[in-house]
Amino acid sequence: MTEVKFKRLALIGIGLIGSSIARAARKQGLAEEIVCAARTADSRRIAKELGVVDAAYESPVEAVKGADLVVLCTPVGTYAAIAEQIAPHLEQGAIVTDVGSVKGAVVKAIGPHIPEGVDFIPGHPVAGTEKSGPAAGFAELFINRWCILTPCDQASEAAVEKLGAFWAAMGSKVETMDPAHHDLVLAITSHIPHLIAYNIVGTADDLEDVTQSEVIKYSAGGFRDFTRIAASDPTMWRDVFLHNKEAVLEMLGRFTEDLAQLQRAIRWEDGETLFKIFSRTRAIRRQIIDAGQETPEPDFGRTHKSEE
Amino acid sequence: MTEVKFKRLALIGIGLIGSSIARAARKQGLAEEIVCAARTADSRRIAKELGVVDAAYESPVEAVKGADLVVLCTPVGTYAAIAEQIAPHLEQGAIVTDVGSVKGAVVKAIGPHIPEGVDFIPGHPVAGTEKSGPAAGFAELFINRWCILTPCDQASEAAVEKLGAFWAAMGSKVETMDPAHHDLVLAITSHIPHLIAYNIVGTADDLEDVTQSEVIKYSAGGFRDFTRIAASDPTMWRDVFLHNKEAVLEMLGRFTEDLAQLQRAIRWEDGETLFKIFSRTRAIRRQIIDAGQETPEPDFGRTHKSEE
Repeated sequence: MTEVKFKRLALIGIGLIGSSIARAARKQGLAEEIVCAARTADSRRIAKELGVVDAAYESPVEAVKGADLVVLCTPVGTYAAIAEQIAPHLEQGAIVTDVGSVKGAVVKAIGPHIPEGVDFIPGHPVAGTEKSGPAAGFAELFINRWCILTPCDQASEAAVEKLGAFWAAMGSKVETMDPAHHDLVLAITSHIPHLIAYNIVGTADDLEDVTQSEVIKYSAGGFRDFTRIAASDPTMWRDVFLHNKEAVLEMLGRFTEDLAQLQRAIRWEDGETLFKIFSRTRAIRRQIIDAGQETPEPDFGRTHKSEE
Repeated sequence: MTEVKFKRLALIGIGLIGSSIARAARKQGLAEEIVCAARTADSRRIAKELGVVDAAYESPVEAVKGADLVVLCTPVGTYAAIAEQIAPHLEQGAIVTDVGSVKGAVVKAIGPHIPEGVDFIPGHPVAGTEKSGPAAGFAELFINRWCILTPCDQASEAAVEKLGAFWAAMGSKVETMDPAHHDLVLAITSHIPHLIAYNIVGTADDLEDVTQSEVIKYSAGGFRDFTRIAASDPTMWRDVFLHNKEAVLEMLGRFTEDLAQLQRAIRWEDGETLFKIFSRTRAIRRQIIDAGQETPEPDFGRTHKSEE
């Protein structure tokens, strides 16, 4: 593995992902100094109290001064304004990257602001939990998870290699990809799952004939699995859907079409079609487990024991 | 808690649920003898080898002979034929129940066959994992999970109380409910979640521009959460949808309507609507956790560590 060490790592935003990068980079000794910018005084205080950063600034400009690695870890909708603000203060030779869940829109939002002599490499660690904020991060978040880089012509090969080595040192497997393809792949593996999870939780909340208390009591029948990703950060996810519109609408169209087929099979009591569709899915879970992307334990390894 | 002890417990079907009942009943000393009927020689052999039953028969008739508690644990579609077959051999004073995920159809399938002097009480433990078969069961499966009984006029109050005590002794919380209301509640808390989980896994499997290997690699973005319930038993779930058609179609209609609203908000870049809907859902997860129906640990408590 390539030895990697940055002088000053500047994290713009110190939520779940930013603070996990801070912890992992600290643990692996990947930066001499780790600083962050955070909008709220609370986040800055918590980040400092937890010792995950050496300094926390309100202004992204202060954070990027002297930094040779700048990582945007705020919701995607804030990127353009932040890029414009920090651009004049970026060090020559610095690498600018991000952790946003969409990539085409990010290239457009950040790219134009990046000055000559700075390498810009959009990135996306496919990792996370349903928790938010600086206290939710942990150093192990990226282990065995994929980090996708979508380098364009604004980065040297050496810079891409160095950033890849940074993610690898935090435990990630690194892949490079075209931004448009990234957005299509993540639409189905991440964005649509979040959308339908948010949706069913909303549908359940709106019922007149079934009480909320009943939904909660009998959620172990399957519903509770959806509430985890539907508990993710609403601002982050609003921005994902606003910035990956085409791919999400395309995948949603396919999902709805397939659901109509299932609906029709139920209406016409076509057990054969139902059985055929329900039989396809075990193999995929098995492969996800074999690929180290999921726990093999039943029920996600949730504990089954008396609380008494 | 009422002391409960059956002479002979007959489990018709010895999959995940049947074998979990066998283990829990054995552990809690709820029956002097525990027997099962299973269609395949493999299931009978495994059940006996694991010591979860004292005897395993091919014929349900042999299993119910002398039994004072008979529990149907096969897919719902098999109930009518089994009920007809065992009816003449049921003991006077026996309780007949089931564990099916629908209840209205079960009343119609089993009820007419139950002779005078036998108490029939439909039941549904809202518990399970994505695994199937006799080896997948465990005694703790029902702890802190709700078991819904939907007694009709074919059972005495004493019998309902005795069956409730049986489930309580295995760790369940017991609730009684009207069969039609059960089917509506479970449509949203269990059946629709399974349907859309099966559906999205199918949609992902059918894509031309995204490879299956990509779906697997980047499944940690949310997709993998859906593969758990989509790995459930296809025969069981086919029967659920064939036997809870009205309630499922009603809830599916609402789900689709709500999804269309989200789709429109994405198309028209209505961030406010998206944010509002995405902000409603954290509270429900919190309540499910507070009600002891879900783990408070991030990411379902999945381990985050290096496998190297």
